[in-house]
Parts: sequence; structure tokens; C-alpha cells
Amino acid sequence: MLKFSHFNTNFLDNQLANPSSAALNKAFELITQEIAQKKTGYYDLVYNQQALLDSKAYMQENINFLSQIQTIVIIGIGGSSLGLKAIDSMLKHLPSRKNIKLKYLEHTDPIAIQETLNKISLKHTLFITISKSGTTIETSSLLKFVIHKYRLFDHKKHLIFITDYYSPLWHFAKESNFECFGIDKNVGGRFSVLSTVGILPLCLLGYNTQELLDSARYFQNSFLAREQDHLLSKAIFFAKNKERYPINILFSYSNVFKHFNAWYVQLWGESLGKIDAYGKKVSLTPIGLIGSIDQHSFLQLITQGIMDKTITFLSLNQAKYTKPKIPKISLPHLESTNFVNNTSFAKLLGMQQLATMQTIQNEGIPTDHIEISELCEQSVGRLIIYFELLTSVVGAILNINTYNQPGVEFGKIRLKEMF
Amino acid sequence: MLKFSHFNTNFLDNQLANPSSAALNKAFELITQEIAQKKTGYYDLVYNQQALLDSKAYMQENINFLSQIQTIVIIGIGGSSLGLKAIDSMLKHLPSRKNIKLKYLEHTDPIAIQETLNKISLKHTLFITISKSGTTIETSSLLKFVIHKYRLFDHKKHLIFITDYYSPLWHFAKESNFECFGIDKNVGGRFSVLSTVGILPLCLLGYNTQELLDSARYFQNSFLAREQDHLLSKAIFFAKNKERYPINILFSYSNVFKHFNAWYVQLWGESLGKIDAYGKKVSLTPIGLIGSIDQHSFLQLITQGIMDKTITFLSLNQAKYTKPKIPKISLPHLESTNFVNNTSFAKLLGMQQLATMQTIQNEGIPTDHIEISELCEQSVGRLIIYFELLTSVVGAILNINTYNQPGVEFGKIRLKEMF
Repeated sequence: MLKFSHFNTNFLDNQLANPSSAALNKAFELITQEIAQKKTGYYDLVYNQQALLDSKAYMQENINFLSQIQTIVIIGIGGSSLGLKAIDSMLKHLPSRKNIKLKYLEHTDPIAIQETLNKISLKHTLFITISKSGTTIETSSLLKFVIHKYRLFDHKKHLIFITDYYSPLWHFAKESNFECFGIDKNVGGRFSVLSTVGILPLCLLGYNTQELLDSARYFQNSFLAREQDHLLSKAIFFAKNKERYPINILFSYSNVFKHFNAWYVQLWGESLGKIDAYGKKVSLTPIGLIGSIDQHSFLQLITQGIMDKTITFLSLNQAKYTKPKIPKISLPHLESTNFVNNTSFAKLLGMQQLATMQTIQNEGIPTDHIEISELCEQSVGRLIIYFELLTSVVGAILNINTYNQPGVEFGKIRLKEMF
Repeated sequence: MLKFSHFNTNFLDNQLANPSSAALNKAFELITQEIAQKKTGYYDLVYNQQALLDSKAYMQENINFLSQIQTIVIIGIGGSSLGLKAIDSMLKHLPSRKNIKLKYLEHTDPIAIQETLNKISLKHTLFITISKSGTTIETSSLLKFVIHKYRLFDHKKHLIFITDYYSPLWHFAKESNFECFGIDKNVGGRFSVLSTVGILPLCLLGYNTQELLDSARYFQNSFLAREQDHLLSKAIFFAKNKERYPINILFSYSNVFKHFNAWYVQLWGESLGKIDAYGKKVSLTPIGLIGSIDQHSFLQLITQGIMDKTITFLSLNQAKYTKPKIPKISLPHLESTNFVNNTSFAKLLGMQQLATMQTIQNEGIPTDHIEISELCEQSVGRLIIYFELLTSVVGAILNINTYNQPGVEFGKIRLKEMF
């Protein structure tokens, strides 16, 4: 399913990479405390069937209406869209994925707005507004724009809402008789993909969300049963080496991980860039790369620049992709490239990932490797919860509030002042 | 055209942000030395008309053949594709841009290969292989693949080459009677977009490449006439504060800059992550962000995390985008968002950029701002050469070889060993 490896000698030699059981226990205790204190609601999502039940009920009630929907437009930004995008990109090859276009109205770029709404026919379109509060300026502005453009007060079935229970948006939607789904206030946007925020659109797209949740629960339970202590070790290493390795790279080998990288960057950056309990600025800076392509842009910096980075490799076991292959052709003057002839591109990509990892390890740079056997709801559910738990453990060790984002508010206040 | 501003008090108070004229002279001298020593060929590109003449001659000779081309597929990775992608993304709104699909066969991801070649009809397709040597394993493998799949030895007009004079690929193409364009060996891939590498495809797409080169030359000459010393100041600040601010963010406000960010990341990272003349690892780590969207993923980390980052804002003066507007609607419970009613989305985006910049400046984080009055060949030519010159000056001050990438070779050797 998911294979976790910490190869690097630097990890193994370093005491922090092989923490004592006391250290592991201490880190684990911080998480059990968070859970007990209900500091965040995301731990409950894998046990709670509400998102699934709400989604199924909505689909059942609107079966005829939904059968004519060919495009879903998500109005939402940041945590309201990144998780869905990540999962859909990783799973869109599955046969159950319906032939529905998924588009996003995210930000206020006029060029992007016009491109997204180009060719939209209301009859075949469902708008889903996703926002914790509804007062995010991008989301509220875009919501007004589509309400006005498509006269949605006259076509209420074509606009539905996912928002915090009793938020301003909740009250608006309920009073105006739009369909509205509630999420718990203590589930932060970047930890919300396994709530209705992700589950409802994923259900509409035809994915097996039950499996997604089941497998995430399986991994979370396994972690709580202390069967995944490698996660604790890694978190301790990252947190305790934050001055030495302030940058954490996720180097993902396949284009299908592009949006997963973006989801990771938000999760990591917004959770772990904080002022700690003692008033000190703390951070771990995330960077997402795609292999092999970024070997040709970022690898030089990794291998020869200052060693301020850890690298997590994410790859797909590509054994089943036996095609396409590199043809067995020898081109005059290019014979030096023949060593890969008759190899599948997938195998070449896999070998490139290994060669790059070994090269980086030889420099003494900390690396670890997550290999996914197959992209399906099960593996993706585990991958999501793995990174969420990892983020939580690192945040707890750093003694910061992993779940808020006060630094984003200042800009919002300044914007209001400027108008 | 381009407006450069260094607002931040941190820049202004810091002695390094207002370097003495002796320091400016010293930095400038390093560049004039590079030029005199012909350490790199890219400085010559803006004076040399060869790329333009070669491109025009090819287009003239093949006018009938090219009139039926509807898709261009670039086979090339890293410096062979990033610059073209960046420019086309910024300029594709221009009326002169022909209705030709531009696709890329870049890396060895089997899923990406199949998606790219889906729906390709050879009759209407031109493949352009771009590679310094031709032995880059991704490029050579993909070249073999398309030669085999489309039997291109029987359809030679549909495959052309851009490569170093007398490289293995050059010899292959010439001996096999494919059309082949040469570039100078001392023009590195990431500095090559103003050579035939970028100019030929851009000509085929209908852009005014003469203007692109003219405006780049204008800016380069202006820099060499010491009229752009703000560039030297910034380079000195970045280079001399490399321990304090090891991360340089380019925060670009519009989706059209997504590929420009990627070009910048390669240019900066691969040029400035090096072992210096004294054997010490040196680096400045680039990160590209898109506003407003990344305000919801990365801003928290910038404002409250440790202050190890500089931020360069890149924005478009959006005054001419008066539409679309945020409708003058008040939604019950969401009245707090009405302050932007009747504003254009473009103006909102511009205000968000300013508000974000001011918020970051208030934290004491070094920022600067490049505002583009209008996206056209002129402004893009200047933008490209500005970042190339900036990279060169920083590299020269850091006493590294800005133009090589020895760290990428180790992985290639390891890959070969593994097969």
C-alpha cells in the first residue's frame, strides 16, 4: 500500500533519527493530549460517517438533477479547494471517475475567471461554494459574481454550500433556501479534505469515498496503536533539526502529484510557520518538486548548495506500467543513450528517482522515501492522513498552535483599510 | 514598462541595501569582466540577429508546410522548455498569437506522455527537439519514441532540431538530413530563451520576436550604461545577506506568471546553488508563489515564521482590466464583504498585492516590487533580461560559477551504473 523507508545514513547515525522510546512516548503523548482536549476536529473525521451520509442523501434526493450535470465549479480557495484538487488529480484515471469537468473559481485574477467560466452552460453546471465562514473576500466576491451572472436565486438547485455550522454563509444559505452542508468549526480548512468539503465533491465525481475514509481510519488507528512509530521518529527529526534543516522538500515523481504537492505546501507551511508559546518565530518551509522534470531545475541546488534541506521522495511503484517503452533504436552519434533502450518509461522514471535519491544521500542530505504501490482510494486515504498526522506531531513538538493562521488576518485588515 | 521599487524600510535602513558607489562599481566590474572573458554567451544574444534570421529563413522556405501545422510539440526539458513556456503563458492573449497548440514532451512520466500525444495527427504536427547535447536521457528517449511512433525518418519535415553546434545531436540531425539550428555552446540552457531555443518557436507562434530582442537589448544596454544600478543594489543585498535571507520568494500576482515562476526557480536555483571558489557550499533557494491564491497557503509562514526570506512582488498594472466587476449585491449575513462591491476583480487583485506587501513589510521582511504596465513583447523582453542579469551579478559576487551544473551530473552517472 504505502511503503515508508528512511534510508539515509544521516538519519540512521543521528541520535535524533533513532529517538529513544522515551522520546517517542513523549511525542505520542502530545498527540493523545490534543485529541483529548479536542484542539482540532480533524481526528474525528475518519470515525464520523456524517459527510458520507449527507453526501449520499443529497445524491439520492437529486438523482435526476445530477444526471444532467457535466461541470462542477468549486468556488473556494486554499483549504477549500487544494485537497479536492490533489485527490482528483491522483485518482482521475480510475474507471469509476465520472466524465464531469471539475473547475475552480479560486482567486481574483480576471483572466482566470473568464477562462474558467468560458463555455459554461448553467443547465449542465453545479456550483459548489466552499468556505469556512463565507467572508473570505475571494470566495464572497466570486459567489456574488456567479449569483449575478447566472441569476442563481432563480435556479437554486445549481448552487450549493459547504460551510461551518452557523457561519454567516450558513445563515445566508439556509435563509435563502439553498442546499447547505455543515462542517464543524474546529476542522481547519487545510485539514478538511476528509470532511464534507472533500467527500461531497468526490462522491459526485464517482469515487469510492467509503474506501478513502476507511483506509484513512485504518492508518490513523494503526498510528494510535503505536504501529507507525516511524512517523513519530520523522516528526522528531524534523522538529528538533529545524535550525539545521529549515526547508523540507517533497520530491514527487509523477505529474499526478502536482496538486498533492500544493496541498502539502499549504498544510506544512500554514501549520508550521508560527510564533511559538514563548513568542519566538518558528518555521519549517515546504517546497514541492516534480521528478524527473525538476532534476533539471532544482537538483543542482540540493546537491551543491548549503545543506539546509530534507528531502522526502514520493513515488509510484510503476511496475504495472509496462508501456510505453523506449524503442530499441540506435541513433548515430547518440549511442551513449542506448542503455535505456527497450525499458519502459515507467521503469526509467523509477530508476531516475532512485539514482537521484542515492546521489542526494551520498552528499549526506537527510532523505526518506514513500512508495505507493498503486494509486487508488485506499492508498490516497492513507497518504492524506499520514501527512496530516505528521504535521500535527511536528507542530506539537514545536509547541505551536498548528491549527490557526493569525498571520493571514493582518493582510485582510490592511485590505479593508485601503478601501 | 517595468517599474522597480524597493519600498521596504529594512532595505533602506540596511547599509547593504544602499551600497556605496564603490560597492556598486565593484559589482559592476565583475560583470564587465565576465563579458570580456566570454564566460557565457548569453550577453551576446540580444545583439546577435542570427536566431531571428535563421527563424525567418526557415519560415519563408517552409511557408506552405507550416500553414498546415496546428500543433507544435517541444521535446526538451529544463532550460530547453521553461523559457518558452514562460513567455507563451505571459503573451498568449496577444492577437498575433496564432491558433497553434503548443505541447511539451518533457519527462519520462508515462501518464504525461500518453496525455500529450493523445489526439496528435502527424499531418498537422511539428516536433521540435531542443537539447544542448541530445544526450539528456529524457529527451533522447522521447525523441526515439516519436521517431518510432510516427516513422519520422519518412516524414522529415515534421521533426526539426535546435542544439549546440557540433553536438552529438547536431551531427545526428545533419547526417540524417533533418533541419537543424545551431546554438553556441557557451549559452547555458537556463540562459537560452533569447537564442533560437526560444526565438524559433516564438516566431512560429506569431510573436514579434524582434521587439522581444530589441527591448531586452535596450535594458541590457541601459544596465551597462549604469542606468539600472537598482539591479546592482538588489544583487549586493541578496548576495551579502545570503546567511540571513537564504530563501528568495518571487510572489507573482496572476496565473499568467505560473510558468515564469518556474523559469525563475530554475534560473536562480541552478545558477546560485554551487560550491564556491574556496570549496564552500553556497546557495540562495528560490520559491515561486502566485497571488492571491498563495496568500491562503504560504503567507502565514512568511509573516510569522522565521525571517529567512526576501520577497519580490511581481504584478501587472491592472488598470485597463475594468471587467469583470464584483456586482453591487448585498447578501444577508455577508454584508461585511460589501466594501469591495462594484470594484473590478483586477483592482481587488492589485489591492490584495499591496495589502500583502505592506503587511509583510510591517514585519520587517525585505521586499521589492516589479510592476509591469502591460504584458507585451517589450515588457517581457526586459523582464527576462532583468532576471538573467540579476542572477549573473549575484553569482559573480558569490564567487561561484553561475553557468555550470556539475551537481546534476552525479545523478546521471548513478543512473547509468544502475542499468
